[in-house]
Order: sequence, then C-alpha cells, then structure tokens
Amino acid sequence: MTDRTAAAPDPAPAAIGDDDGALTGLLRQAGSPLDAVALRDLVRGVLAAPEPFDGTAWMTLVAEHPDPALRARLAALLADARAAATDGLDRVGTDPARLAALRAELAKRGLDGLLVPRGDEHLGEYVARRAERLAWLTGFTGSAGLAIVVADGAAIFVDGRYTLQAEAEVDGDLFARRHLTEDPPTDWLAAHAGTGGRIGYDPWLHTPAAVARFRRACAKAGAELVPCDGNPIDAVWPDQPPPPLSPVVVHDLAHAGESSADKRRAIGEKLAADGLDAVVLAAPDSLAWLANLRGADVPFTPLPLGFAVLRANATLDLFLDPRKVPPATRAALGNGISVSPPDAFGPALDALGTAGHSVAADPDATPAWIFDRLRAAGARVREQGDPCQGPKARKNDTELAGMRAAHGRDGRALTRFLAWLAREAPGGGVTETAAADRLEALRRENDLFRGLSFPTISGSGGNGAIVHYRVTPRTDRALQPGELFLVDSGAQYLDGTTDVTRTVAVGTPSDEMRHRFTLVLKGHIALATAAFPQGTWGGQLDALARQHLWRAGLDFDHGTGHGVGSYLSVHEGPQRISKLPNKVALEPGMVISNEPGYYKTGAYGIRIENLVTVVPLPAPEGAERPLLGFETLTLAPIDRQLVEPGLLDDGERAWLNAYHARVRDALLPGLDVSDGDWLRAVTEPV
Amino acid sequence: MTDRTAAAPDPAPAAIGDDDGALTGLLRQAGSPLDAVALRDLVRGVLAAPEPFDGTAWMTLVAEHPDPALRARLAALLADARAAATDGLDRVGTDPARLAALRAELAKRGLDGLLVPRGDEHLGEYVARRAERLAWLTGFTGSAGLAIVVADGAAIFVDGRYTLQAEAEVDGDLFARRHLTEDPPTDWLAAHAGTGGRIGYDPWLHTPAAVARFRRACAKAGAELVPCDGNPIDAVWPDQPPPPLSPVVVHDLAHAGESSADKRRAIGEKLAADGLDAVVLAAPDSLAWLANLRGADVPFTPLPLGFAVLRANATLDLFLDPRKVPPATRAALGNGISVSPPDAFGPALDALGTAGHSVAADPDATPAWIFDRLRAAGARVREQGDPCQGPKARKNDTELAGMRAAHGRDGRALTRFLAWLAREAPGGGVTETAAADRLEALRRENDLFRGLSFPTISGSGGNGAIVHYRVTPRTDRALQPGELFLVDSGAQYLDGTTDVTRTVAVGTPSDEMRHRFTLVLKGHIALATAAFPQGTWGGQLDALARQHLWRAGLDFDHGTGHGVGSYLSVHEGPQRISKLPNKVALEPGMVISNEPGYYKTGAYGIRIENLVTVVPLPAPEGAERPLLGFETLTLAPIDRQLVEPGLLDDGERAWLNAYHARVRDALLPGLDVSDGDWLRAVTEPV
Repeated sequence: MTDRTAAAPDPAPAAIGDDDGALTGLLRQAGSPLDAVALRDLVRGVLAAPEPFDGTAWMTLVAEHPDPALRARLAALLADARAAATDGLDRVGTDPARLAALRAELAKRGLDGLLVPRGDEHLGEYVARRAERLAWLTGFTGSAGLAIVVADGAAIFVDGRYTLQAEAEVDGDLFARRHLTEDPPTDWLAAHAGTGGRIGYDPWLHTPAAVARFRRACAKAGAELVPCDGNPIDAVWPDQPPPPLSPVVVHDLAHAGESSADKRRAIGEKLAADGLDAVVLAAPDSLAWLANLRGADVPFTPLPLGFAVLRANATLDLFLDPRKVPPATRAALGNGISVSPPDAFGPALDALGTAGHSVAADPDATPAWIFDRLRAAGARVREQGDPCQGPKARKNDTELAGMRAAHGRDGRALTRFLAWLAREAPGGGVTETAAADRLEALRRENDLFRGLSFPTISGSGGNGAIVHYRVTPRTDRALQPGELFLVDSGAQYLDGTTDVTRTVAVGTPSDEMRHRFTLVLKGHIALATAAFPQGTWGGQLDALARQHLWRAGLDFDHGTGHGVGSYLSVHEGPQRISKLPNKVALEPGMVISNEPGYYKTGAYGIRIENLVTVVPLPAPEGAERPLLGFETLTLAPIDRQLVEPGLLDDGERAWLNAYHARVRDALLPGLDVSDGDWLRAVTEPV
Repeated sequence: MTDRTAAAPDPAPAAIGDDDGALTGLLRQAGSPLDAVALRDLVRGVLAAPEPFDGTAWMTLVAEHPDPALRARLAALLADARAAATDGLDRVGTDPARLAALRAELAKRGLDGLLVPRGDEHLGEYVARRAERLAWLTGFTGSAGLAIVVADGAAIFVDGRYTLQAEAEVDGDLFARRHLTEDPPTDWLAAHAGTGGRIGYDPWLHTPAAVARFRRACAKAGAELVPCDGNPIDAVWPDQPPPPLSPVVVHDLAHAGESSADKRRAIGEKLAADGLDAVVLAAPDSLAWLANLRGADVPFTPLPLGFAVLRANATLDLFLDPRKVPPATRAALGNGISVSPPDAFGPALDALGTAGHSVAADPDATPAWIFDRLRAAGARVREQGDPCQGPKARKNDTELAGMRAAHGRDGRALTRFLAWLAREAPGGGVTETAAADRLEALRRENDLFRGLSFPTISGSGGNGAIVHYRVTPRTDRALQPGELFLVDSGAQYLDGTTDVTRTVAVGTPSDEMRHRFTLVLKGHIALATAAFPQGTWGGQLDALARQHLWRAGLDFDHGTGHGVGSYLSVHEGPQRISKLPNKVALEPGMVISNEPGYYKTGAYGIRIENLVTVVPLPAPEGAERPLLGFETLTLAPIDRQLVEPGLLDDGERAWLNAYHARVRDALLPGLDVSDGDWLRAVTEPV
C-alpha cells in the first residue's frame, strides 16, 4: 500500500535559467536552506494553500529574516507562479475526458469501479485543492458528496442542501444524480457493482465503518471492495496541486490559555489510565489544539494539515512537511514535540505495532489506512473517541474571555453593517455581493482579524431560503423592499471564532414574514433560556427550538446548534443540538450555536443565530440538581420590525428587551454617532 | 457447543407406582398421547411456568377433551406436584454453598471465571424460573443485573433502581455490589480477570455486542473470554426447573386484526426486497405477534417461549416444545406454519448456512450463539433490526379499538379503586398490600381480563419514592394522612394491555407536594399536547416532559415513555421517550406511556402515567408538514387536590378540565351511584 503521506513532489517543477543563479545568491545571503529549485517547489506548495490573510508570511519558510531585496524577488516569483498556475479546478461543469481517463486508469489496474468521496486524509470539512478530486471529476463543488464510477455507469450522491447545485453543476448524462441519504450509495453500489466486480477505494479517504458499509454493499452484488495503491484520480489529474505549504505558527498562550505541555500531560495521563500507550490523531484541529499551533493549509480554518501521535508520556510526534515549520515555530515547540516528514508516519505506526503497543484512534475521524497499518504491524488498536475533542470543546477561561472580546468587536462590525444596510438597502442599490463585501471589509478593520470563518451567506428574497446559499455572479441580485435579507457570517480572530446570522426586513415585511420570524425567535429564546441538569445532551434540547414552528406545521431542515472552536473550526464536535442522536453532554465552557430558522422556498429565509456558551446557573430554592444553561456570546440587534409582540409571552419579551439592552451597552462605546443612534433606536424595548 | 434448546429433560422425574397403571388407563381412554411418565414430566414443565390465569388450561396439553375423572386426577396430580416442588429460588439471601459449587464446577472446566447475566435465551425482560440463574446464585431478585465470578472474587452489578435491593438481598462479603453503569462490569472484569485467565460466558445469554465488549475487557487484562458448552450453573443447580410448558393458544383475529398469513406475507416481501432469504427471530413477542399466538411461559406477559425462522416465501418455522401446542392450536396454524422441537433449531440454522442463504437477525435481540452457528454454517448473516418490531408497534385499527375498550374497563376498575381508597385510606386502615389486592380484584371482574401486566407498584410515603418498588411483608405499611400514595399498575386483557400510574394525597398534602405534583403534571400535559412532524423520535420530546422540573432544579431518573404491546409485553420497542438516543420515529398507531415523575427519597414519590397513541393532527392554517400528536388512552382521574392551579397556564388548565370531562363521560355509565358521585366530584373543572 502506498504511503500517501510520502508522495514525492514533482521533481522538476520548472527549468533552472540564468536568473536562478542570482536568486540562489540572494537565498544563500539570507541564510536560506533552499536553492532556486527547492524554492520553486516550495512556491507550488504555497499556491496549493488558500490565499492567506498575510500574503508575505510564507516568506518565513524561505528565510528567517528575508531582506527587502529577497522579499521583493519572492513576491514577484509568487505572483508569476500564481498567474501561471492551473489545477483544472476552475472548469465549470463535468469534463467527459476526465471520466474517460479515469475509466482507462481503472481498467489498467484491473478495477471495475471506484469510490470518489469529497474529502481528504483528515476527513474534515475543508480540504486543500489537491483533495478536490470529486470536483475535478464531476464538476460538483459542494462541501459534501460522493461519486461512484463503474465501467458502464456512474452516480453522484449529495444531500438535500446540494440537490439543486448538483443538478446545475454535474452532467446528468455522465453521472446519475442521487440523494445521499434517501437513495444511499450503498444501494446503488449493490445494484451496479456486478458479480465478480472489483471496486476500488482509497483507504486514506474513508473511515473503517464506511469501508465496511461499502464492502457489505459489494458483497450483496457478489463483488469485491479493493483498496487502491495510490488514488487512481491522482494518476490522471495532470496538474493536481501538491500538498499545501502554509507556515505553521504558534498559537500564543495569551489566547490558548493552557500550554501544550499541560494539555499533553493531561491527555497523556488519561491514556495511561486507560491502559493505552499512544493515540493517533488524524484530525488536524486536534493536532492544532494539542500543540498550540495554527496554520493556513485549508480555507477558513487556521489548520496545519498533518498527523500526530501522542504518547502516554506526553511526548508528541508531528508528521507534516518540515518545510512549513519556520525556525521560530520550531524553536517554540520545545523538547516534547518532534516534527517528522510525512513519509515517517507509516514507519512510526509500524514501530508502535512492533512494540506491541496499545494504540487508540477515533473510528469516526481516522482513515481506514491508519487502522489497517497499525493492525498489520501488530498494534493493539482501541477504537475510541479522540481524547482531545472534549477538552478542546470545553473552552478555558482565557479562551472564553477571548471569545467574549472577539464577539464584542465582531458584533460592532455587524451592527455597523446593519446600520449601513438599513440606510442603503431600501433604495434598491445594495446587491448580495456588495453586502457580503461590505461586511467583510468592516470585519477586516477589527483587531486580531485573520479572515472569515466560512463563506458569507448573503441571501435576499428566495436566495435566503437556500440554507447554504453562496452568492455567485449568476445568482447575485439587489435587495428589494418587501423582502427579507439573511446574512450568515463569521470571522476568525486570534482570540476567537464567530458565527452569527441576522435576518432583516428590507422595507415593510408581510404579516406572514413577521409571524414566521416570531415563531423562530420564540424557539431561539426557548433555547437561550433553557435550564437543564448536568448530563443533558444537545438532542434533548433540540425540540425546544422547534416546538413553536411544529405547532404551526412548520420546521427547518438543519441542525439547531453546532460546536465552534477557539480560533479553530467554525464547526467542531463533539457536542451539537440537532435531531440526530449524539449522547455528548453539554458541559460548561462549550460553545455552540443557537440557530433555528424557517425557509419558504422561492420566497424568503429566516434564521436567527447567536453563539452561546454553557454556564452553571444559580440554584433555584429547593433545587436538588446543579443546573446548566447558556450565556449568549453574540452581540447584534435582532430586527424588531419582524417581531409580532402579541405572539411573545412575558418571559420572551423580557428576554428580547434584556438582550437588546446588553447589546446596546456593549456596542455603543465604539460606534460613531450615526450608527449609535441607529442602534439605540432598534434596541428600544418592545 | 451444546445446543441448549436440545437439553433433554431429567429422564426419571418420579417413580412409577401402582397408581400409574390407573392413570395410564385414564389417559389412554381420553386419547392422550401421554403415558404416566410423560405426564409427570409434562407437569414439571407446567410448574416451571408461572401460575396461569386459567388453572386448568394446561389439561388441553394432556388430551383434547379430558373427561371429568381425568380432570380431577390431573388437578390432584398438579396440586401434589406443586406442593412437593422445590427449585431453590425461594431462599432469601446469598447461599455461599452455591457460589462454592459454581467455583468448583468452573475449576473442573478449566475456567477462571463466569459471567452470570439476569436473562434467558430470548434476552427479554421476564424469564422463566429456569433462567433465574442470577437469583439462584446471588439471592438478587431484581429484573436486571449481572454477576461476575472469578476464583478470588465476585461482584454483582445493578442499576440505580436496584441499588438498595441488592444491598438487602446480596451478601456483600461474597459479592462486591456495584452500579451497572457508573462502575461498569467491563472495568471490574478488566481489573479481575487476571493475566492468562479464562473467563467463561454462556453464548445463549448475551448479544454479540455484549460478548465483544467483555472480550475487549478480558483482552485488556491479558485474559481470554471463552464460550461455555452448557451453562455451568445448570450443572450445579440440582433442582433447576425444566423449560416451562404452558399451552400455546391462538390470538383471535377479532383481537389481532390481521391474520398471521397477511403479516407473514408482508414481512416476507420486505425480506425479499432486502435480498434476504430468511430472518431468525429470537424474541418471543415477535413470534407471538407474527403467528398470532399467545402463551403463558413467563410472568405478566402472554408469551410462548420459542424461536422462529421466517422465510421470504412467508412460511414460518417455529421451534418450541411440541408438547405445549394443543391440537386445537395446531389445527389453526395452517400450512404456512410448522412446529419443530427445540433441538431441531440448530440443524435448521445449519441448513440455512449450507444453502448459502442470506439471513437476518437483530443484533440487539438475538443471542451470540445464533450468530455463531449461522456463520459457522456458512450463512450470509445480516445484522439488522427485527422486522416484526415496527409493524407490531404500529397497532392496526382493530388493536387500537381493543386498546380503547380495554382502557375503558381498566379505567373503571381503577376509578372504583380510587373511590374506595378515598373513603378508606384517611382512616389509616389501608395497607399497601391491601390496596394492591383490592385493585387486582376489581380488575379481575373485567371482561377479557387475563392477569396483571406487571407486579403492581403500591407505594405510600417514602416507599413511593422507590421507582420500582414492590411491596413485601417486610416493607408493607398503612397509608397515612398527610402522605402521598403512588400506584402503578396494569392488566393484560385479550383486547389490550394497560399500564397506568396515579398519585393521590391521603388527607391534606403539603405545599411542596402540590408544587412538585403540579410541575410533573405540567410536563405530562406538555407531552400529551405535543405537536411534531413525521420523523420525530421520542428522545426529541423527552425534554418537554422534564422542562418544568428542570427549571426548578429537579428531575426524575427514569424514561418518560415506553412502548406497550397489544395483549403482549407492557414494555416493547422500538419506540421510546427517554434521555437515551433512539432514532425510531413515532408513527401513527404506536402506543407509548407518558409518565414523568418526581421522587423525594424517604418522603414521597409522584408519577402521572397515561398511555397514549400516536395520531395524525389536523393541519393548522398555513401548515407545510403533516403533524402528529398523541391521543390519550388511559381514563382515570388525576388528583386535583395535588394541583396548584396558579402554576398552570390557560392551556394546561384547559387540558386538565377537558381530560376530566372525558374521563367522566366515559366511565360514569358503568359506575354505581357512590363511585359515580365521587368521580363527578373529583372531575369538576379547576
């Protein structure tokens, strides 16, 4: 089995011209370990990462202190390379030639089919461009999906969020378009694998449970599921980007609140108590949290991609490209953390096995490849949840203080945006794109801003009813009076991550809009004011947010709350509030969203989202059990024009007025007169 | 591996005397296939079943129409045998000699330990006396628990319901007493199995998942989990009863509402559509539902114990002792159902394997032995939910009509009881036992009554706070003024199963009692009036029943609702309403309990339980999704003395008054003047 992490970069990315002599001189002068050839290779990796917040940070990977001449040269080099770069992902729609090339490659390998998931070796939500194999093959650009290709057919499976998008992006003659859960891929596979068929899968891209599921489906057809030695798509994607190279930086203790050494000691002790020698971490957010490191390898989330092995003795071995660790970071890691190149990861797993170690890995977050390799090497493998998940989710006091501070700054930017919108939108001159840009620009002015935490959802009218809408030139439209405008947005700050949705009326809303908005608000308040005993998990509270919609025969088809990281993923586990069972208790310090909604297809969308953190509540008289509740973190006005006060009970009205008083007190100090006057007006009691 | 189902009965149960000659004559004369020896063996099986509602029904197993002389002889024979019978289960407390005998048996087998679960080969709640191995070994008589015995130690694990009971019943010097979930047996096993230890388990008594869990625990200790060839306890329990023999009777179409042939055809088609050849059913309630059969092999639930294999072609093979199928039942089964003796079950599984069939079995309800045997025989085994569970849970119109009728009769009996209690209890002359007996006597007067559906919980004062309290001579006490009395009871009727809890004040309740009762009532009403979309599962609604208690810092430590069968188990799946995740959607026709409570240890217990059935609700104006809700089936007054009207909102008050009006209208016609006057008074609007 090829060790994916050991994949060597293309050896000769560019010819070495006369100019390289001068460049090599500059590099040598700056004390860089790189020559011109290595630099060009590094630049390919830099371009394979998303465009970073700090466009020159990558230069620290070239030299610790590049002088102005070298900086200028590097900037020019990157700009030239960016202009020349192609990776085949900008094409719109399905390219039949790619599918044909893949089929030829499969035939060459003696395979009759292939699973093509949307995902990478870390099984996370955001992936590097290199891992966008599903998009390259099918044209589908959504964040979740799976294709199956067999010799005489192919299908793509997406969930309800992406049904329309898949229809627009994927050629239905080449790929049957199916619903991921209603018409599951395993059924299609069982019907199409064919007796005796050999269906390939990339063991780096699936959990063991997923592999088992597809194996059963193949067995049903009398076919066989076969692990691939190297992903067949990589073999036929000529301009596939290399793994991304963004600088790995230290997440300051002032923001992290707990040293990596302390975190590693605590988790290491837990491993020892569980009779474990080590845990393998495939989730880069666990690596980032545990080592207090951040990176920029994927969009919207400050992750350094890599694998890690934590031992019970608290030492941590990181497996990531050493080229992306600048000297300053390396110096800060200390003795307890080693950095090895990715190709050392497989042998490190082998060594765990040879030593007969007991090794844990999270079956929901770890590729089958890792389990296979550990077991083959003789390790005693324990499938259990990632031990970093819980402590990462329970924010410490420093992180919570950072979250509150970040939400103050973020709320002020959002309030300035809403005030601007209130002035400009009724005239019809604000488009969805302009609104999203304006909001991003206001956030950029904030201290510690490092980028958006996800692509802004800026949807007016019917576009607001598309839950995961992302404005494009084709769909962009001006906000119109009589419409609702839904904006779901967030940012990454060094001290915290935000995620907030506001729905506002442009001009005068209809009675129906006010009715539905108020039902959503009642659900939001019911959750915000919930009181529950220790041990309660999110799914138990989900109905509180839906009950008023339900009684009206309405509902919304997404979760009510997801965990949020601290300058990490805007979606993180293990807690959530949703219809799906998830027996993870809500614990103090956890941050989670409160975001009920209502969507009328083609007409409007409503969502009210605040982030909250779990807090102990004061004990009522006679209480027998400690109670928990929520503190709302997000600070921004809720559009009172959309509230029908007659539908609120006294408690709900009191909550809304108290929240608005808090928003006003917190945000006013930093606003100019005009925005301040606006905020004062829109936060008057109802 | 010994085939448990093939275990032969003790060959010489009683000496054959002179008297047997005459008996054999009588038997021959009545056309019985039995001789005196076989009859005595049959009687042992009859005595191994609980005492039946109809004490002479067993005689149909002897002869189709026994004449009076034979009947008298049989009655005498049974009475003599009952008087002489011992099975070692009446002993109170732990018998050290039994533990010593077991350890000797284990040593003989080369085992270092044994798992002793409370359960039988069908993994159900109620078991025959033969399967009470845990009680025999430890003295613990609760309905759930597990012991682990190793050479130098032993422990018993029970859940919170049974902590006190285990302390009272089990010798703590012989068995460490542990909490089943807080201090799980796997941890104890890992700590006590010992390196190189061989820990035995009976593969008939555990699910595959449980076996896997214990295997992992053993592995942690460097020990091995070893299947036992025959349960070691059976070898050292000299007077262990044989498998029970109660007559298998036809459940009339007038009550079942759907013929077995139609049920089998529908499930068979589902199997075929899933690519399955057969399903193995280990759950006797599935067998009973599918074949429209009932029995009396275990207490409180009209089950015939047995295994079944349903094929995709709708034929059903039953594996149960043919001696318990009287000729009338056999004649009614028709061509599609065969009856084979238990020892044919293993070979039948082998045949499925030899044929290469795809066979389903429910991993949560099927012993590991069955999976092991199927796999060893080469069957393609699919682990999936029991296909009878869903249709069994969704009662058809006939069953629902029967349920409503049964609840009318049952509610009238309960109302007569409550009226009697109101007259008698304040004088201090009613004990818990007397109350339970009175209620049972009133129920016995009802048409179609066939016994209680579980042991009545009759708890006054502090006894009411013991959630699964069962009055004993030691704990019995008179109801006292100023106390609460909690009575949780139910019956089996041919047309339905009931389960109802009422809590009443004896004399004047305290303000605290009224406050807590009203909070429980508010939760009960919130659930009773819930409106929710299709696809909602019970765990989503659980918090509705708890929210008011939670806000006061209170809660209750049991589920809010369990499914109820139709003249079947009073606890049935797959739906439930609880804190535990269970993604089974509530569907029209399902019957489930609504039973929030509050318990103050040592002082009082409160529970308000009605059965409800899921019904479609009328669509509100503008509704986009079909709504479901509940129709309350149980009819009995709720004690208004315990309601603090100031804590109810308008909707809650309206529900209570409407419910009481319904109770009054439904029950009055059958009550005498005194009870009727009482009911009228206690159902006045609040």
